[in-house]
Amino acid sequence: MVYYVLKELGLSYEVVQSSSEEIKTPEYLATKHPFGKIPSLNDDGFQLYETRAIVRYLVNKYQGTKTSTVLIPSDVQKAALVEQFISVETSYYTGPLFKIVKPLALKKHKGIEPDLKSVNESREELEKTLDVYEKLLEGKDYLTGEFSLADLLHVPLTFFAFSAGEGDLWNKRPNVSRWWKNISERESWKNIFTEYNLAQYATK
Amino acid sequence: MVYYVLKELGLSYEVVQSSSEEIKTPEYLATKHPFGKIPSLNDDGFQLYETRAIVRYLVNKYQGTKTSTVLIPSDVQKAALVEQFISVETSYYTGPLFKIVKPLALKKHKGIEPDLKSVNESREELEKTLDVYEKLLEGKDYLTGEFSLADLLHVPLTFFAFSAGEGDLWNKRPNVSRWWKNISERESWKNIFTEYNLAQYATK
Ligand SMILES: N[C@@H](CCC(=O)N[C@@H](CS)C(=O)NCC(=O)O)C(=O)O
Ligand SMILES: N[C@@H](CCC(=O)N[C@@H](CS)C(=O)NCC(=O)O)C(=O)O
Repeated sequence: MVYYVLKELGLSYEVVQSSSEEIKTPEYLATKHPFGKIPSLNDDGFQLYETRAIVRYLVNKYQGTKTSTVLIPSDVQKAALVEQFISVETSYYTGPLFKIVKPLALKKHKGIEPDLKSVNESREELEKTLDVYEKLLEGKDYLTGEFSLADLLHVPLTFFAFSAGEGDLWNKRPNVSRWWKNISERESWKNIFTEYNLAQYATK
Repeated sequence: MVYYVLKELGLSYEVVQSSSEEIKTPEYLATKHPFGKIPSLNDDGFQLYETRAIVRYLVNKYQGTKTSTVLIPSDVQKAALVEQFISVETSYYTGPLFKIVKPLALKKHKGIEPDLKSVNESREELEKTLDVYEKLLEGKDYLTGEFSLADLLHVPLTFFAFSAGEGDLWNKRPNVSRWWKNISERESWKNIFTEYNLAQYATK
């Protein structure tokens, strides 16, 4: 997510990988993320954690300096609609989607059998959310009309859902499917795809 | 939440109550909130939904016009820390707290027996979060150092937790307890308390 925003903004960066053990050490908790999570950002000494705080900060500080991509518009009402759809993504999309993608990934990589009842319930919940998206995206290329941070935040997890063979949820809804094409075929996402070799996660 | 922000900003408003049936009607879904939730905002014809989007919009548009309260500072790094703690609140605080408060409220008002195992698990999760808060609040009156939207967003649900008899979780941690006093004793919250007769929800 953070990489994708960095790319859209044309910023250069250095990645420091932390293992799942490292992020629970007293040093990491004291200096990087007190809740023991990734990612965290160090921008020239300024330390910040939590994905959505990091990406808003990068946009507010650097948008327009290297590329012309607008992720949060300066108009107060347009920016509010971006925030509205970020909250929609957090409240109704990512929750159920995560509960589908995570068990399927655990099955694939660790052989752990998924709780199918829970996966199916989450799929039903996501279907309802996508039905609303289908209406919201009628006649629109992007959630607010123009590409924004709200669209971008949907990309990584949805990509993993497609990799897990769940793409039909998007493909069977014409507006949602068109929107997914628009947001997943951006140059910066394709670059990340290649750079981090995301093809290795594809199931087919 | 939205009322509290409106008060802090000194804005006048009109409340339109919607029943739990109304918010699922086609008209409400089409004009107010496509996911059938409250709240939504109508600001002189501009329609917006989702609490955190609404409050950010009100701050961005009206902060400083009627009162001197600063909920999001203009400095980019200070604003980023406010966003960091809003994400902390959403990710580690409100989730488990909601799973404690909601069942206890359902018991009190509808006589539904709570799932104690789930309540206890959520309480343990919240204890861990509050242990981190205790460290983060060392030597600080507020999460970022100064009162902000991040502190404010904690108030309503925490108030309901105190009403449900769970106050000890905050009281037994000196820094957390001091912080709770600072944020719950603000004039605007006391006004809401009186205006909406929140005392009726207290258990003792
Ligand atoms: N609220 C955090 C969540 C971050 C998060 O859950 N990160 C995962 C990896 S994607 C993690 O650190 N998991 C390790 C753990 O929880 O121990 C954010 O938005 O940055
Ligand atoms: N993500 C929404 C959540 C709003 C929400 O859950 N509202 C509750 C009342 S506090 C609601 O409308 N519940 C009715 C329902 O879900 O049917 C927001 O932040 O505004």
